[in-house]
Amino acid sequence: MTLALHASHPDANFAAVPVAAAAYDAIAAATELAMQLEQTAVERDRNGGHPARERALVRASGLLALSVPAEFGGDGASWATVLQVVRTVARADSALAHLLGFHHLQLAGIRLYGDARQQRRLLTDTIERDIFWGNALNPLDRRLVATPTAGGYVLNGTKSFASGSVGSDWLTISAWDPLAQAALIAVLPTGQAGVTVRADWDAFGQRQTDSGTVDFDNVVLPEDLVLQPAHRAPTPQSTLRSQVAQLIMTNLYLGLAEGALAAARRYLHDEARPWLAAGPEVAAAVDDPYVQHRFGDFHLKVRPARALADEAGRALDIAFRRGPALSAEERGEVAIAVAEAKVLAHRAAIDIGSGLFELTGARSTAAKYGFDRFWRNARVHTLHDPVDYKLRNLGRHALDGRLPEPSPYA
Amino acid sequence: MTLALHASHPDANFAAVPVAAAAYDAIAAATELAMQLEQTAVERDRNGGHPARERALVRASGLLALSVPAEFGGDGASWATVLQVVRTVARADSALAHLLGFHHLQLAGIRLYGDARQQRRLLTDTIERDIFWGNALNPLDRRLVATPTAGGYVLNGTKSFASGSVGSDWLTISAWDPLAQAALIAVLPTGQAGVTVRADWDAFGQRQTDSGTVDFDNVVLPEDLVLQPAHRAPTPQSTLRSQVAQLIMTNLYLGLAEGALAAARRYLHDEARPWLAAGPEVAAAVDDPYVQHRFGDFHLKVRPARALADEAGRALDIAFRRGPALSAEERGEVAIAVAEAKVLAHRAAIDIGSGLFELTGARSTAAKYGFDRFWRNARVHTLHDPVDYKLRNLGRHALDGRLPEPSPYA
Amino acid sequence: MTLALHASHPDANFAAVPVAAAAYDAIAAATELAMQLEQTAVERDRNGGHPARERALVRASGLLALSVPAEFGGDGASWATVLQVVRTVARADSALAHLLGFHHLQLAGIRLYGDARQQRRLLTDTIERDIFWGNALNPLDRRLVATPTAGGYVLNGTKSFASGSVGSDWLTISAWDPLAQAALIAVLPTGQAGVTVRADWDAFGQRQTDSGTVDFDNVVLPEDLVLQPAHRAPTPQSTLRSQVAQLIMTNLYLGLAEGALAAARRYLHDEARPWLAAGPEVAAAVDDPYVQHRFGDFHLKVRPARALADEAGRALDIAFRRGPALSAEERGEVAIAVAEAKVLAHRAAIDIGSGLFELTGARSTAAKYGFDRFWRNARVHTLHDPVDYKLRNLGRHALDGRLPEPSPYA
Amino acid sequence: MTLALHASHPDANFAAVPVAAAAYDAIAAATELAMQLEQTAVERDRNGGHPARERALVRASGLLALSVPAEFGGDGASWATVLQVVRTVARADSALAHLLGFHHLQLAGIRLYGDARQQRRLLTDTIERDIFWGNALNPLDRRLVATPTAGGYVLNGTKSFASGSVGSDWLTISAWDPLAQAALIAVLPTGQAGVTVRADWDAFGQRQTDSGTVDFDNVVLPEDLVLQPAHRAPTPQSTLRSQVAQLIMTNLYLGLAEGALAAARRYLHDEARPWLAAGPEVAAAVDDPYVQHRFGDFHLKVRPARALADEAGRALDIAFRRGPALSAEERGEVAIAVAEAKVLAHRAAIDIGSGLFELTGARSTAAKYGFDRFWRNARVHTLHDPVDYKLRNLGRHALDGRLPEPSPYA
Repeated sequence: MTLALHASHPDANFAAVPVAAAAYDAIAAATELAMQLEQTAVERDRNGGHPARERALVRASGLLALSVPAEFGGDGASWATVLQVVRTVARADSALAHLLGFHHLQLAGIRLYGDARQQRRLLTDTIERDIFWGNALNPLDRRLVATPTAGGYVLNGTKSFASGSVGSDWLTISAWDPLAQAALIAVLPTGQAGVTVRADWDAFGQRQTDSGTVDFDNVVLPEDLVLQPAHRAPTPQSTLRSQVAQLIMTNLYLGLAEGALAAARRYLHDEARPWLAAGPEVAAAVDDPYVQHRFGDFHLKVRPARALADEAGRALDIAFRRGPALSAEERGEVAIAVAEAKVLAHRAAIDIGSGLFELTGARSTAAKYGFDRFWRNARVHTLHDPVDYKLRNLGRHALDGRLPEPSPYA
Repeated sequence: MTLALHASHPDANFAAVPVAAAAYDAIAAATELAMQLEQTAVERDRNGGHPARERALVRASGLLALSVPAEFGGDGASWATVLQVVRTVARADSALAHLLGFHHLQLAGIRLYGDARQQRRLLTDTIERDIFWGNALNPLDRRLVATPTAGGYVLNGTKSFASGSVGSDWLTISAWDPLAQAALIAVLPTGQAGVTVRADWDAFGQRQTDSGTVDFDNVVLPEDLVLQPAHRAPTPQSTLRSQVAQLIMTNLYLGLAEGALAAARRYLHDEARPWLAAGPEVAAAVDDPYVQHRFGDFHLKVRPARALADEAGRALDIAFRRGPALSAEERGEVAIAVAEAKVLAHRAAIDIGSGLFELTGARSTAAKYGFDRFWRNARVHTLHDPVDYKLRNLGRHALDGRLPEPSPYA
Repeated sequence: MTLALHASHPDANFAAVPVAAAAYDAIAAATELAMQLEQTAVERDRNGGHPARERALVRASGLLALSVPAEFGGDGASWATVLQVVRTVARADSALAHLLGFHHLQLAGIRLYGDARQQRRLLTDTIERDIFWGNALNPLDRRLVATPTAGGYVLNGTKSFASGSVGSDWLTISAWDPLAQAALIAVLPTGQAGVTVRADWDAFGQRQTDSGTVDFDNVVLPEDLVLQPAHRAPTPQSTLRSQVAQLIMTNLYLGLAEGALAAARRYLHDEARPWLAAGPEVAAAVDDPYVQHRFGDFHLKVRPARALADEAGRALDIAFRRGPALSAEERGEVAIAVAEAKVLAHRAAIDIGSGLFELTGARSTAAKYGFDRFWRNARVHTLHDPVDYKLRNLGRHALDGRLPEPSPYA
Repeated sequence: MTLALHASHPDANFAAVPVAAAAYDAIAAATELAMQLEQTAVERDRNGGHPARERALVRASGLLALSVPAEFGGDGASWATVLQVVRTVARADSALAHLLGFHHLQLAGIRLYGDARQQRRLLTDTIERDIFWGNALNPLDRRLVATPTAGGYVLNGTKSFASGSVGSDWLTISAWDPLAQAALIAVLPTGQAGVTVRADWDAFGQRQTDSGTVDFDNVVLPEDLVLQPAHRAPTPQSTLRSQVAQLIMTNLYLGLAEGALAAARRYLHDEARPWLAAGPEVAAAVDDPYVQHRFGDFHLKVRPARALADEAGRALDIAFRRGPALSAEERGEVAIAVAEAKVLAHRAAIDIGSGLFELTGARSTAAKYGFDRFWRNARVHTLHDPVDYKLRNLGRHALDGRLPEPSPYA
């Protein structure tokens, strides 16, 4: 098969987007990791808690080095590849995919905000010390305050919903600088004196994302760990970070949608029985005309989301490589491409996660299958920012060419 | 306010359908019961298990006597009233509403299948001994076999997904009679020697419906407990039972949709904050134009479902009172009216249960709110029979006037 | 058949809502009129223009007297009956249904705004002289100015989109009173000196609604034809007129949806062939599982719209009879009930008008069938006011109990 | 702007897909042609009839030579380019785009069915004599019979819905060979003795597609004009023709959707006024939150359809170049890619063509704007084969990997 568009076996679709030769290893590693995680995904989803053992599997996969440039000892993979990896893992376990994706988001932050020395040091360390990064960056939350002192700052306050903070080695943080009346962005070892991470995340989905609350009690932040001081104006390049974040989420939703579809397909083949009113010509559930029709419709939710997510991934790579030369317009175009993909992936994950049961039927709701986790995980994760405002932004752009105002969400 | 269509406070809508004066007490009792159940609904939904204490509340409410004709000591309430009661309770707790609704379904069965003597005895006993009925009737499952003996039958085999069986006093059962090559329908004390109920229900929703598996090991079934022998042909009257069942489900979905909407409304008023990109003119979440629009759209899913469910309830009452004179055509019309209402209620419960989060946002996914239970309960319960075949039946009727073939689902 | 919910033949559904005995003649007359209009509806839709001959049929049907109270010589029919009549005629010809409906809207205006003497005179005249009323009332358009003079006003200016103005006998008008800085409402013979009606309506649907432009050149308006002077504050009663208008539109959309469904059903039975890929078990187009499913779905758009429209009609009758005692809250409840029905009917008419072709297929687009007129007529007529703001109003009410601000549209 | 994904002005999106340098002239020529056709598109849509003058414009554009390989004197453009051209013209005039697209479909047929000599002769002639091709190929219609004679066949019978037949120079035909019990495929000058073309096409959309009926009365068909004799089994290569046809339609729907969106955008900027209930912060129609939201939603119907159509176009080019080596599996993958794009484009064209009015409002229904033509043209053209069976095929493939059975529609 050489047309390279659709493999004849549907599962093969998942790997159908052409990737550079070098990327195949990453996808293979992600596929292997996904298979390991899948063994216990249903059970861990039910129990929640900190996935210490699974974080070790992620580490062992080598995928923490993926986005680190080769000059610092990493794999130098493109964002397109990193996002494929996130999607692949999310098919099996969207919580661990989130941890992996957000690790790379922190690395993106170092590259977008940090100076050359910081990049060299932090990214080299990431490889050498096998650092797993967590996120405590949320510039809109001003509860964490950075008071300037000699040689840096003292941090006091708290950050909630800090994804990947529980069990992390280092954190990216934002903190409010009252003098500058703006937020600085910095990095910090999670073990720094005065830092406490509480494992208090308690949503009904994405349960193992280690999204704890981080308390800071007179924490010393040395100046050389500040990636972006509060007084420095955001640039098109630096605000690209939110697009990395949004695209990681997009691929996570996509992985959930694909995972749900794959689960439904397996169940329909292996377990489901035709409905009694379907008539004698329907010998198996997969022969039911309504099952086929709905499955085709579901496929048409995933397929375009995947196409646009891949396109947006390529656009992100181009924009990322542009570096400081990136213009506001180019940045805005990436934001539009990402928003398009994100809305489609959001809808695919929610609609399939809820709708698959119309095909698989009553028995498929048994807890042992854990099929509700697709909807629960998608539902919790798709609420990061309201889809209606994404649609508004897309509408404004389509009406006027207006680009979205850069923000942590746009 | 005398137009009696819409009370000015939306919550009042829930009771807006005019009911006979005598029914008000039942609605009041149901409202009181719902308030009691609501206290612990989130926690019990999480833990699952047998709701012994809540069954006691149901008993104490007096609502078990609701559908029993006055001549046998009951309240003689119409089905319209019973269904309103189910809906009211389901707003707070759809599992307990299911137990209550299916109790009355068993009583309907006694009235539809049983002879005068059986009705008198069983319904009188229901009142006098405060019997809580459970369901083990599923004529399509032939694993329970009734072997004729002197004076009755011996039962061997099993029934699964027996709603309300755990903790029940009496059960309605169906059992395969190999001689007649058809199923008989009977009643039995749950404590009859040889009957074992296993509490093995483990779906991700409707967790406290006590839908266990009932094993029968040489159980004696005396002849006078057989409501319908296997050789007796079903009549329009007797096949009305599936419409009672379908309409109980319909009202249960409706209660879930209404409960979800009420929960979203409360949260939007009390907890939600306007989205940052909404602009300064949106002072509160409820002022957001997209929140208002989506809420209006949700209302337009519940409102027509309620109108058609009420209409179907009245049709059921008329048909029920017709007794043996009920024609196949009249029975078919009830089935169509019920199917219409059921599809709308199904969609309302699923769409609102999943979609409400687009309005309430990320923080509303905290486990403490338990807002995912609306979707989970609706999702599990709406799979009783496939909605696509209901739509097919409605389409056939609208195209040809063809009435659905009576079945346990149509 | 006595359940009176669903007649077994689907066409009978159209008349399934119970109506008072006296109303049967009106429905019969409307059915007869619809059959007459249907003969030429496709052709007249194509050609557009003034339907002089068809207006004569409407007159001959006696239906112009329908809403006039018996004390003035009319039939004293309820609004529920008038609206059923509009719906019945709209199934065959939504333009003529509009003329008939808006005639009764003008009569409603006389009863809501006029004093006892005006009502007596104008309604008696309507019967005795067989007056066909047209509409030139649009308080938001200030281009028509009323200058006070001795004994009344002089009118100068213009009114556009005046439904039913071409070929009318009398008109209801609104005119801006610069002194009062508000609009007065009055009636006027169309033949009054200085009044010119231009037949310039040129939309792609509802082509024979005679919605011309009316020019006023020094037209004398005597005081006793002023129903509501500009200085008089609107009351809950007087603002009920917009609800009469909205509900006429609702029933018109409903008639269009029902007409489209009936046309599709006939075509599917008489002309359509099964699709070649449907397989041998599909012997006729109506046996196709997707045709049945879509038809069921369409039915579920019409059915609830009909239920809510009927309910809103009954609410309007109650409110209308309340007279000056009608409270703002009661008026608001009617507005909510009407808005609910209108949104559902709007969607039904558009969705079925466009979607029916997915069932009937390519050959059904031949101009001779004229099946596109359902969409075109619905599309033009449903734009009177934006559906998104109706949904917003419904959402606000469902969230807060807030009632819509009375306006010509709410 | 170098990211080459989204131009900042939305109209620029239409040309945003990267095309080979050589293709730019074709797109420029198509854009120029579209602008010429747009001048009179509304008027010609209303009047229907044969577009003789506009066919001359198409000829003058040079675009008839587009797909002819360079070795025969043509431009040797890829199918990707041809399809972009069809889409570009369809934005302004979907009927003329159909004529142009189906001209190239006939040329595809010559290349897929014809031997080397036939290809050389017919394609060279196409360039040298500036031939405009029409379609009379429909293998499922057996009314045209080919009786073998010395040196060829005699044709008798009729072909209806022959797109582009009126005014064509040459036709592709299929004819039933009773001996072989299969259809042959051939070409013929439209002026051949015994051929009569009747201009009897009378649908409510796509009115100027010259889709007449062709009568054959003892028409001589010499053997060397037979591209594929009836006894020759279809190959993966030869059955690729239906995919060319389906993808031309897809791009035509896409052009309609894009044209409708562009028309709505212009109207919203230039003509529309904000709704009175929108409040003072909405200064212009394009500022309305619901207008923006709906426009964003419409954009999200067009954008993925475009992405998948472009992908399918590239797949078609690859498959086409494969020639006789094309495998059934590869052919099937193209069919799936085309079906995906076609369903999305179908929905985009219908939904936007009908829904745009919710944004533009009542005044936009004036006949002078001709905005209803988007829906009418899309509605007529999207019925070529039922979308439900496309979804079924997509579902089967997604469930099983099953490829669609090659047919004129799949």
